Amino acid sequence: MGEKIVIIGAVAAGPKSACRVKRLMPDAEVLIVDQDNLISYGGCGIPYYVSGDVSDEDELRKTSFHMTRDESFFLDAKGVQIRIYTKALSIDRQAKTVLVEDVRGAEAKTDTIAYDKLVLATGSRPNVIPIPGADLDGVFTISDLHKAIAIKGRLAKGKIGKAVVIGGGAIGLEMAEAFADLWGVETTLLEFMPQLLPRIVDRPFADMLKKHLRDQGVNIHVNESALSLEADNEGRVCRVITPKRTLETDIVVMATGVRARSELAKDADLLVSPMGSIVVNNRLQTSDPNIYAAGDCIETVNLVSGKKFYIAMGSLANRQGRVVGDNLAGIASTFDGAVGSFIMKAFECCIGGVGLSLEMALEEGFDADAALSAPSDRAHFFPTEAKIPLQMVFDRKSRRVLGVQGFGPMGDAVLARIDASAGLIAKGATIDDFSNLEMAYAPPFATALDALNSVANVADNMACNRHRNLSIPDFLAWMADPAGQPDWIALDLRHPNEVGAFKEKFEKTWLPLVYNEVRQRYEELPTDKKLIIICDAGTRSYEIQVFLDSVGLTNSLVLGGGFNCIARLGVDWWPTK
Amino acid sequence: MGEKIVIIGAVAAGPKSACRVKRLMPDAEVLIVDQDNLISYGGCGIPYYVSGDVSDEDELRKTSFHMTRDESFFLDAKGVQIRIYTKALSIDRQAKTVLVEDVRGAEAKTDTIAYDKLVLATGSRPNVIPIPGADLDGVFTISDLHKAIAIKGRLAKGKIGKAVVIGGGAIGLEMAEAFADLWGVETTLLEFMPQLLPRIVDRPFADMLKKHLRDQGVNIHVNESALSLEADNEGRVCRVITPKRTLETDIVVMATGVRARSELAKDADLLVSPMGSIVVNNRLQTSDPNIYAAGDCIETVNLVSGKKFYIAMGSLANRQGRVVGDNLAGIASTFDGAVGSFIMKAFECCIGGVGLSLEMALEEGFDADAALSAPSDRAHFFPTEAKIPLQMVFDRKSRRVLGVQGFGPMGDAVLARIDASAGLIAKGATIDDFSNLEMAYAPPFATALDALNSVANVADNMACNRHRNLSIPDFLAWMADPAGQPDWIALDLRHPNEVGAFKEKFEKTWLPLVYNEVRQRYEELPTDKKLIIICDAGTRSYEIQVFLDSVGLTNSLVLGGGFNCIARLGVDWWPTK
Repeated sequence: MGEKIVIIGAVAAGPKSACRVKRLMPDAEVLIVDQDNLISYGGCGIPYYVSGDVSDEDELRKTSFHMTRDESFFLDAKGVQIRIYTKALSIDRQAKTVLVEDVRGAEAKTDTIAYDKLVLATGSRPNVIPIPGADLDGVFTISDLHKAIAIKGRLAKGKIGKAVVIGGGAIGLEMAEAFADLWGVETTLLEFMPQLLPRIVDRPFADMLKKHLRDQGVNIHVNESALSLEADNEGRVCRVITPKRTLETDIVVMATGVRARSELAKDADLLVSPMGSIVVNNRLQTSDPNIYAAGDCIETVNLVSGKKFYIAMGSLANRQGRVVGDNLAGIASTFDGAVGSFIMKAFECCIGGVGLSLEMALEEGFDADAALSAPSDRAHFFPTEAKIPLQMVFDRKSRRVLGVQGFGPMGDAVLARIDASAGLIAKGATIDDFSNLEMAYAPPFATALDALNSVANVADNMACNRHRNLSIPDFLAWMADPAGQPDWIALDLRHPNEVGAFKEKFEKTWLPLVYNEVRQRYEELPTDKKLIIICDAGTRSYEIQVFLDSVGLTNSLVLGGGFNCIARLGVDWWPTK
Repeated sequence: MGEKIVIIGAVAAGPKSACRVKRLMPDAEVLIVDQDNLISYGGCGIPYYVSGDVSDEDELRKTSFHMTRDESFFLDAKGVQIRIYTKALSIDRQAKTVLVEDVRGAEAKTDTIAYDKLVLATGSRPNVIPIPGADLDGVFTISDLHKAIAIKGRLAKGKIGKAVVIGGGAIGLEMAEAFADLWGVETTLLEFMPQLLPRIVDRPFADMLKKHLRDQGVNIHVNESALSLEADNEGRVCRVITPKRTLETDIVVMATGVRARSELAKDADLLVSPMGSIVVNNRLQTSDPNIYAAGDCIETVNLVSGKKFYIAMGSLANRQGRVVGDNLAGIASTFDGAVGSFIMKAFECCIGGVGLSLEMALEEGFDADAALSAPSDRAHFFPTEAKIPLQMVFDRKSRRVLGVQGFGPMGDAVLARIDASAGLIAKGATIDDFSNLEMAYAPPFATALDALNSVANVADNMACNRHRNLSIPDFLAWMADPAGQPDWIALDLRHPNEVGAFKEKFEKTWLPLVYNEVRQRYEELPTDKKLIIICDAGTRSYEIQVFLDSVGLTNSLVLGGGFNCIARLGVDWWPTK
């Protein structure tokens, strides 16, 4: 027999490493141990299983050709041996052995497994916020398929009328949709931070998402978390207490992030980060060259900031698994890091991003700014056209693109722009690379200058100081307190039908002047005011700013993203009529 | 006043150059002349206007905020002057003037316009194949909006029951759909070459498209063109004669490609390629530094082959227009070339590509090969999942990715993979860049290893000689003449339900052995045959090839793309039951 390869963990990175190395070195003896019996499942599919989109949990464990990926499948089809119910207790790096325990029996039955090469694919565990009642019956994390089966069981029995989800990250949001959409559960989501998807997208995008979820009937409270959970007479969770309210509920899902499972590595004196993730090089070797690690248990490099970061994603686990398989077989493949591409369905909409948000980019010390627009996803004359707010975060000095965010109707339009950005951002591409990026064009799919080209052009104009921008947060602050900026006035370029109600409501701060009349009538404009130029997406506003500059009216700002974006935020001052 | 900029042509590149330079140099005097009265329209939208998806031709001329881009719009909103019905007759480069003629009146009225900088955006004209009857009433090219209006007028009057389209490129195919889909016209398409979209996609993709179009009721004849067109008593086209048949028809559309309109440039002794396209540098200057050119009238560089090529696309015209605007204003932007990203709707499906096809790559002298697969566009357990045949063309030596092609259901899934490829291919990325490309993942949008990653992994295995491939054309040749390769036998790994009919029909050349039994039963396999390993996409076949190699059965080939791709070709030997 060939080399003995032992892998701990059989969900994503583990099986991927195993199958890849077995294909490259068919005579290798490959064994995976996992403490669970449910292995090799698509964990990211759990919300769709709970919602009912996926009818059976077995679907999450099947190949695309409908075979269930259980132990006998791995043995018969892949030549990979799997021991389920087998928990790894410790690693003896000198002896090159793993001590494992069969967790089925009442009494501990241990065993020692020798390895030539070891792979840690121990995954992550969900954070549990330490509040009273966190261990009550009916309080769940989304840590594995068993939990999902239990939740769906309760839903199917009609036992859940109300649900509270704690945590406004992707998993919390997907679970909230699962409860509310198909099951009609009255669902409340709590997020401790001031916005959904904190540190992932910027506030305007988080707020577009929030409004859409609220429009779909999900109650959302940001800046608010649970203080305690209370039980009914049978010990089942029935109330969530927050600083602001008491929520009746039949179930609580805690989706407050995950952290690496790295105890085994730590106990074996492998290098582990202060955050608790296993440290690896770009060949995915730990500090012991005979031990590799991949998936949710490792830290990686953020390819934008250049710094180490922790990112737990099934897609990365699979890519890393392949790299480990290569290296086990002597092929020097590398995993150089990640840009954090993400996409998420939210009822009728989707939101996606890649790279750094503006907030994160500023925190990382970049000379960062953000270009926001609301371009069409396809030709405006094509029946299914929609506007997709799209933001490009860039460094003003180097012109490097640091991140892209998008929001749009459910479908693959936002996905296309995120995917197109991912590879370029990883390679350090500039605004100019995006301006000329040759996105495929036909009217049913795109505009002649693609949405992504357009937002890059806005970034170019901003980076060259031709476009002086007012951000949405600054605009909203002014609308909340016009007296705070007494010399500001809105110059609204939109069609009179659109502007009328605003002029009526904000008489003193609102000045309508339709776009194509500005060149004739600019002399009517006040010279003692800062003009906040407004249109639908920001494009016309920029043109007018340039023109006004040329005639000496240089005191203006463009509302980037325009009222298309503002309308999606659910502001309370929007004229109702 | 500032510099005098004169632009010839007011469809795409011309207006874009004009508006961009006017924003950068507001005091420039910008004039566009065009011989037509219909300007600044979305020419790529013509098939959707003819089909009725777009109800009014004016829609093709509107901005996204619903203003018609006519002369007064350009003057009022953009500060750009346009003279319609004004044909440029000649350029005097010494005097820096353009002689123009007003084409409205009966008698010639000429005029001389002075310029500091001139832009040629003279576009393209459609090829007309020189056959008898090419000038009959009822024979159209898709050269401008007038032709489209005339065609739609005839359709709307119910005068068209049958249509013949000559040319199987993108415009011909879109026009065929326009006739057949909403108007129910009996439509026949003729393509002179052996396949649709010649030189753009490879044969298997062209044939998937052909089958889909036929399934939708379009008659398609490849290897066949018109010899002559015949008229009825009123002089209207009524018959198309080909070497193989006579087609009755009420209309003929010639969509046999376009070529640059470069007479003005040539007459002014500017450098023009042997193909007739205007030669420019990457700042888009012609051989006269005071004269720029952009859009369908220029040649550009193919960023994959490094050679000059001609590609007429509205999307490139717009990007080039912006670069011209920059350079007119003293900003040294460049247009470095194109990779030919394209995407096209065809009824319920779409087809897309970028870079070189395998055929073109071999012609260009690359050590090219193609990895074909049929991965899922999203998680296989997600209800809207579909398989999307995806092909990666690569250079075996350098591992550079030369092109990507995709076919799938109508939507943006194929678009996302083409767009993600475009920027990387332009930058010379390798297979490894695509293997690790961080496509965004959630089950409603993608698979954990994205379709594009998967096909890159196939390419990797092929480039490393781990995956020995049989191409679809070679497989089809064998099926057409099994005696030609007497030692071949199909090893079909699919589910017995799928294999049964094949075994029955091709008894002697078909060997069923289900995927997950091969490790147990490989000793039953014949050792004197070359095993053609078959599954749905090629993935399982590759695994089995690797395994068989390891047990000494090294005489096998993997059918890349598998029977998912074969089934889409409409082969005549498919068992019917």
